Amino acid sequence: MNVQANAARRGGRDARRVLRTTPKFQMLPTLKRGLPDMAPMNEEQIQRIHNASMDILEEIGVVFRDPIALEDWKRAGADVRGERVHLDRALVMDLIKTIPPEIKYHARNPDNNVELGGKESIFVPMTGAPYMRDLDDVRRGPTIADLGTFHKLAHMMPALHSSAHHIVEPMDIVVAHRHLHITYSSMKYSDKMFMGMTTSPKNAEDVLDMCAILFGADFLETHAVATGNCNGNSPLVWDQTMLGAMRAFNRRNQPVLCSPFVLGGANTPASTAAAVAQLNAEALSALAYTQVVRRGCPAIYGHYLSTVSMQSGAPMAGTPEISLMNFMIGQMARHYNVPWRTSNLLGGAKMFDAQSGYESAMTMMAVLMSGANYIWHSAGWNEAGMHCSIAKFMVDSEVCAMGYRMAEGIKWDDFDEALAAIRDVGPGGHYLGHPHTQANFEKAFFIPKLFDNNSIEQWIADGSKDIKQRALEQARYLLSEYQEPKLDQAVDEELRAYIERRSREIPAVDALNEDH
Amino acid sequence: MNVQANAARRGGRDARRVLRTTPKFQMLPTLKRGLPDMAPMNEEQIQRIHNASMDILEEIGVVFRDPIALEDWKRAGADVRGERVHLDRALVMDLIKTIPPEIKYHARNPDNNVELGGKESIFVPMTGAPYMRDLDDVRRGPTIADLGTFHKLAHMMPALHSSAHHIVEPMDIVVAHRHLHITYSSMKYSDKMFMGMTTSPKNAEDVLDMCAILFGADFLETHAVATGNCNGNSPLVWDQTMLGAMRAFNRRNQPVLCSPFVLGGANTPASTAAAVAQLNAEALSALAYTQVVRRGCPAIYGHYLSTVSMQSGAPMAGTPEISLMNFMIGQMARHYNVPWRTSNLLGGAKMFDAQSGYESAMTMMAVLMSGANYIWHSAGWNEAGMHCSIAKFMVDSEVCAMGYRMAEGIKWDDFDEALAAIRDVGPGGHYLGHPHTQANFEKAFFIPKLFDNNSIEQWIADGSKDIKQRALEQARYLLSEYQEPKLDQAVDEELRAYIERRSREIPAVDALNEDH
Repeated sequence: MNVQANAARRGGRDARRVLRTTPKFQMLPTLKRGLPDMAPMNEEQIQRIHNASMDILEEIGVVFRDPIALEDWKRAGADVRGERVHLDRALVMDLIKTIPPEIKYHARNPDNNVELGGKESIFVPMTGAPYMRDLDDVRRGPTIADLGTFHKLAHMMPALHSSAHHIVEPMDIVVAHRHLHITYSSMKYSDKMFMGMTTSPKNAEDVLDMCAILFGADFLETHAVATGNCNGNSPLVWDQTMLGAMRAFNRRNQPVLCSPFVLGGANTPASTAAAVAQLNAEALSALAYTQVVRRGCPAIYGHYLSTVSMQSGAPMAGTPEISLMNFMIGQMARHYNVPWRTSNLLGGAKMFDAQSGYESAMTMMAVLMSGANYIWHSAGWNEAGMHCSIAKFMVDSEVCAMGYRMAEGIKWDDFDEALAAIRDVGPGGHYLGHPHTQANFEKAFFIPKLFDNNSIEQWIADGSKDIKQRALEQARYLLSEYQEPKLDQAVDEELRAYIERRSREIPAVDALNEDH
Repeated sequence: MNVQANAARRGGRDARRVLRTTPKFQMLPTLKRGLPDMAPMNEEQIQRIHNASMDILEEIGVVFRDPIALEDWKRAGADVRGERVHLDRALVMDLIKTIPPEIKYHARNPDNNVELGGKESIFVPMTGAPYMRDLDDVRRGPTIADLGTFHKLAHMMPALHSSAHHIVEPMDIVVAHRHLHITYSSMKYSDKMFMGMTTSPKNAEDVLDMCAILFGADFLETHAVATGNCNGNSPLVWDQTMLGAMRAFNRRNQPVLCSPFVLGGANTPASTAAAVAQLNAEALSALAYTQVVRRGCPAIYGHYLSTVSMQSGAPMAGTPEISLMNFMIGQMARHYNVPWRTSNLLGGAKMFDAQSGYESAMTMMAVLMSGANYIWHSAGWNEAGMHCSIAKFMVDSEVCAMGYRMAEGIKWDDFDEALAAIRDVGPGGHYLGHPHTQANFEKAFFIPKLFDNNSIEQWIADGSKDIKQRALEQARYLLSEYQEPKLDQAVDEELRAYIERRSREIPAVDALNEDH
């Protein structure tokens, strides 16, 4: 049942045929960043943050609200007092040194495998929205069919490397069974890598059982196929749900994002440097715990990063301090030589207006300069994550492709050829007709399709549409062109049987856990 | 008549009183950038660009379509063949080495003086829009009263360091007299530094005569008070209008922006690296010429930078290659140790929609990372410069304040204090009530006023406004609060008399020159 190994024979072959016949939807390979990473801290300042984090871990300690984790920490030699775990810096540094600096993610179509760590990065769409703005820009509760729509779009957008998981919450499925249907939707509508639900330890195990069906249980032991996200409760608390889910992933050798959930100024001090010191301590405590659970298991330094509005208490996006904290966290993650995750293209706007554009682009530019590896929430996030907008999903995905091109850096391969064109054209000439231009224009200069760069007369003739309207038209077009990368029939049947069985077994109790 | 020297006694005192009573409109000082500048090229690559530019200057040459400039170049020892000037690299490097690496700009209110060069930067609003979107978001031809409105807003927005000049073209004034009324409007409605028109050599001289009235002729000899912009005709041509205007500024020891006008792919090769090599040659040829005209005169490495859409031929904004070229040009300007200018917050959108926000923010983030000094077109630019939007002007100005805060870098001053708060609060606590938070929140975290970060319920209760509506309301409010920093009465009368006399002398012929 190992799809990965047999991909050429089954779904993978179909998927590749689809991609060959529709090259415009072909996924971009792993981004290899050619720009230097922004490094606003010198070595001494990195050490200041490091030492402050170590002092926090040793002297204040971190609360692990979970009896198993407390037992694990005792066995590992930590100083456990009640729920508070005091972590010696030597212990922490010893544990995190076995985290692999690079992760290769396997998709069911091996053409869509990606790598991350170091100078390698991937874009993953947003997840977790309880509302959506749909193909008519109506804000409403999403269904499992809507989630499928987003998975289809994620599959088709070249700069997105993943279908993620619950891009929107399927409100028509009972909470207790959602993880099964979300996971199936990720697997079915796209053959890119995906994420695994961590809404409870048992849910995480179900997801990993489904991964074992798709890839083979042995395959999981030696290959990363799904990412879980585990949020901390800042300041300095990890809860039972997250720790249990983390263990479920770690035991199968699958990576989790160890993500303190930072609302700068509300659950951190009002200081970017001190907020990073706290966040760093929190992330390291969870990263270290992954290695207590399973030495050598891949893990990702994570966080959700915002600053809060004093007026509303709501998380803001694109603020200067978020950018600065991203730069700093990037330096810390590189200092520890672990891959790291951040959030991309966040918007706090209620609609897809200019605010949303500014916030999103400021976030993305800072994120790309910061050298993040696992670039989550890369498409659709608006209203502080309360809704995912189809229009924004489309534009964000294209903006990621723009960021991808920028982050690749300067191309020198045809420099001498291009210089020769300057001689040919000479002062006062023009280049559009020159053979070098005609051969290289599209490769040399990105032309965003959803951005209108026509004259105002042409724009009026085209209906005076804003980018939201154009993006929604493009979404409809994409959905009309969508070709499903079919699951192998036997795998599909086994997955469906699993979902059916678990749906019978799990009581349909409604309770919601957060996951950002 | 030296306003600068007598500022405390006259207009300057009034202006400072206004600022004291309305501190929210107080101008931010010169930005001192604390972030490292993005440097994607290594030394060898910088040399590759440099050598390619030197080869262009020596072997291809630059056309100076101006008999005086050709004579000047002959005297300076250049190899002049017809209109084509071949510049030896030793000559170019010898000339540009006397360009001052830093410029102090003097405003009529000395509190508003600014500096640029090295790690110092300023934000200057857009100029040159033939259309505007007004307080009702109606797109129409602007008047001199509209220009006054923009000068008032520029005066009040803290992150804008200049009132610039023709933010919008005053279409109700005959072209031949416009420069007089534009300059007067810049001087009258704001006491920040401003720009000088370069639409013809004689117009530039009129502007500088008016500067001499405002500041004193002797003052100009030793202080920079106005910036001219001189666009090149890429590839490799400088025309008579621009060169004559340049000389007018140089003779009075006033700086010009030496700005090749780059439409990447149309008037440069289809290669970012080769486009930069050409642009660099063009900029250096004009910078060198400023030193032929007047050795030691301040000058600024400029450019207008875009890539063109293959579909429409129109300039695009925010594309990855523009960001990369900004990074590279920054490195070249630093290599030559001259201050440099770029363009900020550009939009190609026809309306103030999400496209406009993405384009603008991508541009600003790249610009700030690139280490630009004279950051022009920082507010209002949309529709590829065809219109200036009041709503966008307001938002861009606030986004500049956000960029300013980010570019300042990390604050460490209260790090230890903030760490103490982590101990006080402990795991699971919250910070909003902590004294450190209450004392430092506003200083620590930027809260953009025009970005809505309320809940959707509150946003609906507030009228479901997009950012455009909120920005226009804020503009109306600002205009209702505006207090004119009065010109000294004698200076004002002299300026008016000058305008009256020149209006009689200059035939009211209508012809328009470009200035970007």
